[in-house]
Amino acid sequence: MRVVITGGAGFLGQRLARQLLERGSLIGRDGTPTAIERLVLLDRAAAPGLSDPRLSVIEGDIADPALLAHAIDARTDAVFHLAAVVSGQAEADFDLGMRVNVEASRLLLEACRTTARRPRVIFTSSVAVYGGELPPLVRDDTALRPRSSYGAQKAMAELLLGDYSRKGFVDGRVLRLPTISVRPGRPNQAASSFASGIIREPLNGEEAICPVPLDTRLWLLSPRSAVAALIAGHELDGTALGDNLAVNLPGLSVTVAEMIAALTRVAGSEIAARIRHAPDATITRIVGGWPAAWDTARAERLGFTGDASFDAVIRAHREDLATSVG
Amino acid sequence: MRVVITGGAGFLGQRLARQLLERGSLIGRDGTPTAIERLVLLDRAAAPGLSDPRLSVIEGDIADPALLAHAIDARTDAVFHLAAVVSGQAEADFDLGMRVNVEASRLLLEACRTTARRPRVIFTSSVAVYGGELPPLVRDDTALRPRSSYGAQKAMAELLLGDYSRKGFVDGRVLRLPTISVRPGRPNQAASSFASGIIREPLNGEEAICPVPLDTRLWLLSPRSAVAALIAGHELDGTALGDNLAVNLPGLSVTVAEMIAALTRVAGSEIAARIRHAPDATITRIVGGWPAAWDTARAERLGFTGDASFDAVIRAHREDLATSVG
Repeated sequence: MRVVITGGAGFLGQRLARQLLERGSLIGRDGTPTAIERLVLLDRAAAPGLSDPRLSVIEGDIADPALLAHAIDARTDAVFHLAAVVSGQAEADFDLGMRVNVEASRLLLEACRTTARRPRVIFTSSVAVYGGELPPLVRDDTALRPRSSYGAQKAMAELLLGDYSRKGFVDGRVLRLPTISVRPGRPNQAASSFASGIIREPLNGEEAICPVPLDTRLWLLSPRSAVAALIAGHELDGTALGDNLAVNLPGLSVTVAEMIAALTRVAGSEIAARIRHAPDATITRIVGGWPAAWDTARAERLGFTGDASFDAVIRAHREDLATSVG
Repeated sequence: MRVVITGGAGFLGQRLARQLLERGSLIGRDGTPTAIERLVLLDRAAAPGLSDPRLSVIEGDIADPALLAHAIDARTDAVFHLAAVVSGQAEADFDLGMRVNVEASRLLLEACRTTARRPRVIFTSSVAVYGGELPPLVRDDTALRPRSSYGAQKAMAELLLGDYSRKGFVDGRVLRLPTISVRPGRPNQAASSFASGIIREPLNGEEAICPVPLDTRLWLLSPRSAVAALIAGHELDGTALGDNLAVNLPGLSVTVAEMIAALTRVAGSEIAARIRHAPDATITRIVGGWPAAWDTARAERLGFTGDASFDAVIRAHREDLATSVG
């Protein structure tokens, strides 16, 4: 089987690639494990540090139809579409967000449609598709009322994938990712960047800034669980999704205060003291508009699992750092 | 003030144009009636039978950015965006539907954004944005789960307009039109075409085919009320819409049997006998997926009104025929 990962040089794309190469196979349309012969990573830049005879790296613009046609061919069985412009950046640069989050998604689906092979497309969406007045518990079928360009763009791409699937052009699945924490590397332009920074930077001996109130409730998923969910999202039988391709993955519902308490338990109060509080109205407004309480019974029935505790998430992050996986 | 109507040669576009020229003014952003100096009709073909010094007709492809830039300029205050590929055609020709219903809408919003004038954009959407399992009463904020390409495309365009409005590029309003009945002219490729045909053709001495069961419930609006709603949609203060630009217009909830009974009352049983029943599974499935019971309290608070009865709708259709307005 041939597998494509867009955003393959991103941290999630790299982790997914490493995991797929290690597993060596995926359960595909015939319901049995099938060897991965080729894994194509598509991104603006090559993923560093990955080397494998099954690996192809294609560098370029995700919104370039020729590049997509080169990456996705008549032997492509699975496309993990992770490439995106993150929330803060999509709000600051409307045109870039539209181009990557909407237009490139459409072109990617067109490339899949052209193969006439109906590949499985695993699309990562976001809790930012929600907004406005929300029910006490958000369900997979709660109305989407995005309050950011990122959320609107993800919601449009969900609709696109839904109709391309209904028409039989692709076999789509939408995974709405909780905020990923602890994300390795440097801060990014996502409004939720701090949700990793307040753990990652103190563990790294650096000061971190927390831009939201302590009682801000977040919905978190570790990188390990996110990669496991992507693979489970590929392997499930699409008919199990019924009319709704979108699944809110089971996350951990924790407040910033609870995150800091977990950091204190796992790493000590000296490390947790490296968090400085400097409220940012824009970030507080964006993050405060995301729901924090979820009904994930459907996700669990479909076989998705989350993290045991935020303490466990921090410990896994430290393990990954020690083994350079992060 | 300058006004643009896309789909200006369509029956609704023509009726709206005639009505605007008769009124001569619209209440605009300063809250007072302002004279319409120029009315631009944009469509593939010229609207027949309209002649007025204030009128400009631009013929061409709605998805051509140069054409849109020509039609929408720095003096444009209002854009009625009616151009669309209808439901049956969008299902049969996926690419055409995407091009006109999504891509042209985006290009039109870009043309508006370029003017930096924040024009009012009145966008006609459809009840086809709904589908799947629905609550007993559909509200403006009920989740959109389209089950047709047309519905998915309209839902994407709603999201686009929402974000362009939130960003301050345009001042948008979304009117979700009930099925228009009695639509003049010939049958079209809309799945709901019969909802006009079963009244129009018998009154015209022709046989009509009813492709759905008699207990199929429809949600109807007359052409007169639709034009009145478009004007009210322009004139309302956008801030009254709050976070949700979309309004389900107050329609008449009637079954096909009730429509035929109304035709019998207004025109006699001989005319109603010209309806032949020939079930069509595809049309029944598409139309049966649309909701038929609505909570339109918000629309009424915003000043929208519907029709008094379906008998009145049929009588108005006959009047319009007699005066060649239809």
